[in-house]
Amino acid sequence: MKKTKIKVFAPATVANMACGFDSMGFAIEGVGDVVEVSVSDGDGINIVNISGEDLPIEREKNVMVPPLLAMKKKLNIRCSVDITIINKIRPGSGIGSSAASSGAAVFAFNELLGRPFCKEDLISFAILGEELVSGGAHADNVAPSILGGIVLVRDNNPLDVIKLISPITMYCAVVHPFIEVKTRDSRAVLKKEISLSDAVTQWSNVGAIVAGLLCGDIELIGRSMRDVVAEPVRKVFIPEYDSLKYKVMCAGAIGCNISGSGPSVFALCRNRSDAVKMGDIMRNHFGEMSVGSDVYISAIADKGVREIND
Amino acid sequence: MKKTKIKVFAPATVANMACGFDSMGFAIEGVGDVVEVSVSDGDGINIVNISGEDLPIEREKNVMVPPLLAMKKKLNIRCSVDITIINKIRPGSGIGSSAASSGAAVFAFNELLGRPFCKEDLISFAILGEELVSGGAHADNVAPSILGGIVLVRDNNPLDVIKLISPITMYCAVVHPFIEVKTRDSRAVLKKEISLSDAVTQWSNVGAIVAGLLCGDIELIGRSMRDVVAEPVRKVFIPEYDSLKYKVMCAGAIGCNISGSGPSVFALCRNRSDAVKMGDIMRNHFGEMSVGSDVYISAIADKGVREIND
Repeated sequence: MKKTKIKVFAPATVANMACGFDSMGFAIEGVGDVVEVSVSDGDGINIVNISGEDLPIEREKNVMVPPLLAMKKKLNIRCSVDITIINKIRPGSGIGSSAASSGAAVFAFNELLGRPFCKEDLISFAILGEELVSGGAHADNVAPSILGGIVLVRDNNPLDVIKLISPITMYCAVVHPFIEVKTRDSRAVLKKEISLSDAVTQWSNVGAIVAGLLCGDIELIGRSMRDVVAEPVRKVFIPEYDSLKYKVMCAGAIGCNISGSGPSVFALCRNRSDAVKMGDIMRNHFGEMSVGSDVYISAIADKGVREIND
Repeated sequence: MKKTKIKVFAPATVANMACGFDSMGFAIEGVGDVVEVSVSDGDGINIVNISGEDLPIEREKNVMVPPLLAMKKKLNIRCSVDITIINKIRPGSGIGSSAASSGAAVFAFNELLGRPFCKEDLISFAILGEELVSGGAHADNVAPSILGGIVLVRDNNPLDVIKLISPITMYCAVVHPFIEVKTRDSRAVLKKEISLSDAVTQWSNVGAIVAGLLCGDIELIGRSMRDVVAEPVRKVFIPEYDSLKYKVMCAGAIGCNISGSGPSVFALCRNRSDAVKMGDIMRNHFGEMSVGSDVYISAIADKGVREIND
């Protein structure tokens, strides 16, 4: 009997990884979206949100809708898709909330249809959701949420993504301070043009971090986590960012930077106990300014979106 | 007895490798500088050129001088350095003529001194010669000429270079058409600012080519050899460049681009026979326009600067 209902988990993701603005991201463990999807006769997409997070449920605003419509159109099928959002990454956190939503939706729908599409196809559909929220069809969150691991996006259209398999396991601490930074505002502060010399610095570091990851050279990864493009203009949104970074770097983090468009900040670490330590430092940093926060401690998660059982 | 005389070979190099403007380069076989260096009592640097190429021999203009002076100063030594330039890459060819000169000089001098410096130190000295000719201290030719292989320059100051060891051997054909393009002019056409979106394209490709090289993925290397920064503005110096590139790509090259600041053009190939074929295509391309050329067929050379015997 064909399955008509599925529950899936799509992990949160950290985009940019310092130097890889709009082109790199990695998946983390233990935080992500959980959605239940069912298909039935009829037509339409119905979304029910029981996660407790405030979400745009109107059809045209939800990031799940454009990807699902595109899949239906591509297959030329009619069916009713019912989605229940059970757990939701807090929107605007900067750890790929919209990417996890659209990733979960496309994966679940594809499973229920008998997998007509490969994972790369699913990424191409899911980024239609990113286009809706950020104005740009970037796969740097969607790709790691679907594939897991650390992913380099060589091109968004036609999609060309490379999962970077590292011989080492790294951990991270991610702090989401409860301050609001809209992706749109966070993109607005970026310069539309950058100096050629800054650009050379950035791509030299992107090349080097890829080499460091593939060769398992932690020191090289650390030296390469330098961002002269986004961090300098986005850090103003994060209270006392320089001081926070200084603290975690002194405590032994491999690197520290803004996660995606912020306000979340991540510290990349050599082991889980280091990540726990960095998490405490980051929670306390914001706590001292009476800013609450969520802290996530995680290995870089090798697994992407997947079916889960009750 | 301490050696007082040495003959060395420093290979020619192809910088940029398409996407890696100012940050990547590789060494080639069979073409390079041959210099004989001797040290004796006294002081000064004396250069004799018997290569047949027209070179600036005045002390302040020769690229070998600033590196050698810096080495002497660092060691606080006095000695007379006598250099005979026996074979010389044609200046202005775009295959690292100045880098081979300074690389050969620093390597030879270091050998005669009993190797007080490591190869990374030698690169740092040699780029002082690059500064003299191009106004920028870039290691993208010097580093592969000294280290061999394919090198990524993460940073020029402090120097951080990564030799990218690929499991595959690739070949290249390099054509040097006999037209004059001064490095200074070739740099002048570059935009001082580039759009953020072009910059993202470039660094996504740099990350991808590094992944392709380290993983031995020829298709990925080929897809990543895309340059939206230098090639579009520099190709105007090379007669019918688009047509040349089209011809070699149709004939099966992995990629094709301008070598360094040009006018040399290189085609990266899967094997030696492909490289020979591309060399013929490129020679004929310029020949049809009555432009003479030198063509070099080579594996990417694993060995950098080295001592040679008579």
